[in-house]
Amino acid sequence: MAADLRSQAIQNPIDIAEYLFKRLQQVGVRSIHGLPGDYNLVALDYIAKVGLNWVGNCNELNAGYAADGYARVNGISAIVTTFGVGELSAVNAIAGAYSEYVPIVHIVGYPSTTAQKDGMLLHHTLGNGDFNVFSNMSRQISCAVSMINHQHEAATLIDNAIRECYLQSRPVYISLPTDMVQKKVDGDRLKTPLDLTFAPNEVEKEDYVVDVVLKYLHAARNPVILVDACAIRHRALDETHEFIKKTGIPTFVAPMGKGAVDETLPNYGGVYAGDGSNAGVRERVESADLVISIGPIKSDFNTAGFSYRISQLNTIDFHSYAVRVRYSEYPGVRMNGVLRKVTEKIGKLNIESGPNPTNEIPDEEIKSPEPTITQAWFWPRLGQWLEKGDIIITETGTANFGIWETRFPAEVKAISQVLWGSIGYATGACQGAALAAKELGIKRTILFTGDGSFQLTAQEVSTMLRNDLNPIIFVICNNGYTIERFIHGWEDKYNDVQEWKYRDLPAAFGARPDQYKTYRVDSKGGVEKLFRDEEFAGAGTKKLRFVELVMRWDDAPKALMSTTESTARRNAEN
Amino acid sequence: MAADLRSQAIQNPIDIAEYLFKRLQQVGVRSIHGLPGDYNLVALDYIAKVGLNWVGNCNELNAGYAADGYARVNGISAIVTTFGVGELSAVNAIAGAYSEYVPIVHIVGYPSTTAQKDGMLLHHTLGNGDFNVFSNMSRQISCAVSMINHQHEAATLIDNAIRECYLQSRPVYISLPTDMVQKKVDGDRLKTPLDLTFAPNEVEKEDYVVDVVLKYLHAARNPVILVDACAIRHRALDETHEFIKKTGIPTFVAPMGKGAVDETLPNYGGVYAGDGSNAGVRERVESADLVISIGPIKSDFNTAGFSYRISQLNTIDFHSYAVRVRYSEYPGVRMNGVLRKVTEKIGKLNIESGPNPTNEIPDEEIKSPEPTITQAWFWPRLGQWLEKGDIIITETGTANFGIWETRFPAEVKAISQVLWGSIGYATGACQGAALAAKELGIKRTILFTGDGSFQLTAQEVSTMLRNDLNPIIFVICNNGYTIERFIHGWEDKYNDVQEWKYRDLPAAFGARPDQYKTYRVDSKGGVEKLFRDEEFAGAGTKKLRFVELVMRWDDAPKALMSTTESTARRNAEN
Repeated sequence: MAADLRSQAIQNPIDIAEYLFKRLQQVGVRSIHGLPGDYNLVALDYIAKVGLNWVGNCNELNAGYAADGYARVNGISAIVTTFGVGELSAVNAIAGAYSEYVPIVHIVGYPSTTAQKDGMLLHHTLGNGDFNVFSNMSRQISCAVSMINHQHEAATLIDNAIRECYLQSRPVYISLPTDMVQKKVDGDRLKTPLDLTFAPNEVEKEDYVVDVVLKYLHAARNPVILVDACAIRHRALDETHEFIKKTGIPTFVAPMGKGAVDETLPNYGGVYAGDGSNAGVRERVESADLVISIGPIKSDFNTAGFSYRISQLNTIDFHSYAVRVRYSEYPGVRMNGVLRKVTEKIGKLNIESGPNPTNEIPDEEIKSPEPTITQAWFWPRLGQWLEKGDIIITETGTANFGIWETRFPAEVKAISQVLWGSIGYATGACQGAALAAKELGIKRTILFTGDGSFQLTAQEVSTMLRNDLNPIIFVICNNGYTIERFIHGWEDKYNDVQEWKYRDLPAAFGARPDQYKTYRVDSKGGVEKLFRDEEFAGAGTKKLRFVELVMRWDDAPKALMSTTESTARRNAEN
Repeated sequence: MAADLRSQAIQNPIDIAEYLFKRLQQVGVRSIHGLPGDYNLVALDYIAKVGLNWVGNCNELNAGYAADGYARVNGISAIVTTFGVGELSAVNAIAGAYSEYVPIVHIVGYPSTTAQKDGMLLHHTLGNGDFNVFSNMSRQISCAVSMINHQHEAATLIDNAIRECYLQSRPVYISLPTDMVQKKVDGDRLKTPLDLTFAPNEVEKEDYVVDVVLKYLHAARNPVILVDACAIRHRALDETHEFIKKTGIPTFVAPMGKGAVDETLPNYGGVYAGDGSNAGVRERVESADLVISIGPIKSDFNTAGFSYRISQLNTIDFHSYAVRVRYSEYPGVRMNGVLRKVTEKIGKLNIESGPNPTNEIPDEEIKSPEPTITQAWFWPRLGQWLEKGDIIITETGTANFGIWETRFPAEVKAISQVLWGSIGYATGACQGAALAAKELGIKRTILFTGDGSFQLTAQEVSTMLRNDLNPIIFVICNNGYTIERFIHGWEDKYNDVQEWKYRDLPAAFGARPDQYKTYRVDSKGGVEKLFRDEEFAGAGTKKLRFVELVMRWDDAPKALMSTTESTARRNAEN
């Protein structure tokens, strides 16, 4: 009764669920991922009502991966699951997004607040009357948790969650109990868009840091720039590009930073990852007297097994939360403002040029009479075929190490999960990325996954078909978990997988004949023919294209070999 | 060095991983579910070494469901996952097992204790150096957590976890860091099997409760017995059957207790679930002056939406942790001993007989000229076809409500997830159940799932093929999430699914032609023909059989309708 009175006092009342979805729409979400479940059904009615698209995934883990892929292309995404069973299925994907700074709004349909208060023995509970267990799990992997339990707090909590999601670039959790969905909030709030600007750095502090950075830059004889994941994830790419272009400093990317930099720039030099670097890169980076490191995440797989040989005494790290010059920390100074000012003030520097990466295929591969597709041949060859603006998703395994050897055209976006490394991710992420691409008018989304990895989340191809998406899917058929074999269990049964007829799956998943085309290539000649096939490669092709790409079970990119050697060594330490 | 000295002092040293898997073998585990991951690879070597079978699932959620199904048939099961990514994918399945009292030993391969102490930035972490986040999540859904971080504690922690798993009949979590796998423990401990007997009740207390129960039993004029899930899960079926047989009291089962009681017994009366009860059952149970309730879980879906009308003043509840007589609680008294003594001492009772359930098909269904397979026709008809010893798995949805109308032959085991209710469960559970069945010499494992539910975990059919299992799989093709439609969203897009060619999947999953057979039936006549087909139905058939069972999208068992009405009402409460 009190609630009703309150809602009568509201000027322009709208339902909480409508408010929530309209806010998501305002920040750029066009499609909502997820699955129905009885605790979220009424809320789902509002998705179509406000003009959003409902994706309808096959399961929640896949939906979570897809939301991750969608956010990486679109800037932010949202997923709806149901209490307990639904949300827990998505938890691995959400943890991955937390780990890799991907902004996903996770909305969980909850039992009514009354049922919660009464501790009712409902389905989807642990049977112990505790309705907070699952949100407590998610607290560990969310940068904000908004439990919508009271009408009067709802709009504030929703706004706060979405803003934190965007600004911290990490998942947030919003509980939406069934009895809150249609409670009223003030619709006039929607007239004021959420403020998504980063708080500016304190001017004096920022200027101080800028001066320190400039001092070291001007003193350097042969500086390099190294761009990594957080430059992408914390939305500092514009500032980074200005800095790279204006200074002309030789620029490299870490594996997780692949795609961050326009690789057609004359001062782009390739991938640096210690022992796994592109040819010539290691020598250049490690002989630099100053490394400008933008958004680094120095994880094992991002450094080819911690094989960096760069001294912190020669390093300036730019983070979203701090700048670090040698060992001096400047906490609370965000990289964006500092980079902008440094670029403005820079003046002339000493520049010693770096290597120029190409997509040239190694000589021994060109000379080899062997028709088999090798990893050493394929990845540079791919670079020759890619087009401006392509989205490339590579699965943890041979693909996300192989891609280090592929030089991209301009504006290519690369998606991979190098830190979290959950296999199965790439196929789910491809659905989300292809959907965002379609909404944004991007023509080609290209997935590379392995046969073992593909099996975890294969049914997401069905969701692509359901949403009329037309990515190009390469399943690398090499008989199992190759990355694991290189770590341990070379020929052990546990690294094998059941051999599927992969390309029969789109049809089994209900593809209309005009909706897809399948291919199988097992030779370099086959790849050449495929790449030249206009129906396959053309930006105008509306079909989902599914390729079995046959490679040897015991072949891997060299960066993978050196990284897994280091992993195996660490696992064996006693 | 200290560790080496210690291991030299051990008489009959064996590696920790070997000890673990041998202990699992001793308690009856024959197959290990799970997926490889680099933090568990070396441990996996020991599975074949000790003579266990590695299942090799397609993903961890499916592996968790399969381990659940395996445990329900076999008594206990084990799953191996890898740190972070693997374990989190399984968390929904483990939560379900916790909720429904299913004993699963969850072994998680961890980074080395050194890497953990150093807080290394490894793949599969959140990047924050915290290696306890995931085990803390699992604490909420495990009855014991054993972190194997020190060689000298390892054997004790392993023994404790496995014992708690069995006795509490709930999941446990064991972390196994890579550097612990090959550390030595005392192999002689294995000569003493784990003590898996329940601590007996305190005699005086037990006798007291027995006398109270007997007093009420002798005073009753028309008592009934109601058997529910915990009688199965807490291993009290022998005592329950003795009690039922000796007393002759009319006996009913709750939906979660389906399969607990030999339904061919003359005093078996059918399913009691309030408004969803079998014909005549509600009247009989609710007019009883004493309800002996064994192992109750009074959840919404187990009571057709809390529609019991039984007074606690007429009820004696038997639990694993207590007995409750009317409102008098006797905590710490386990049901098994009390039931055994009550049965011994019972003497003559007043018995008023109950209804006799049959598998007779309702008259209106027999008379109907309509060839379409209706839910009202199918489930009793199924009961006529089932055989002694069959294992029946029913998915949350039309199947696990429909099965209330199926009277079982003797020794049928029914598997369903009525409380946790995670769709997708049944297909995974079927893999585990069919594997346990094969190991135990049980001939037929039969799955009923819906098309929507099947899509979540479809690739587990591949694992069945890989392990040469031959269940009978019915996919009820009725165009989407029917149970959700009955709650909300009758014709809404979010309750639709992509239409698959389901029966093309076994071949796409690599089935050999001699390994499977597919069917599609869309009429009662088709069902009749199928049930009579010896190749299909025969216990000797070695093939996996896959049936598309076509039903109307808007048809559901009546028990589902009344339950979902109540759910929709509760969800709409304001």
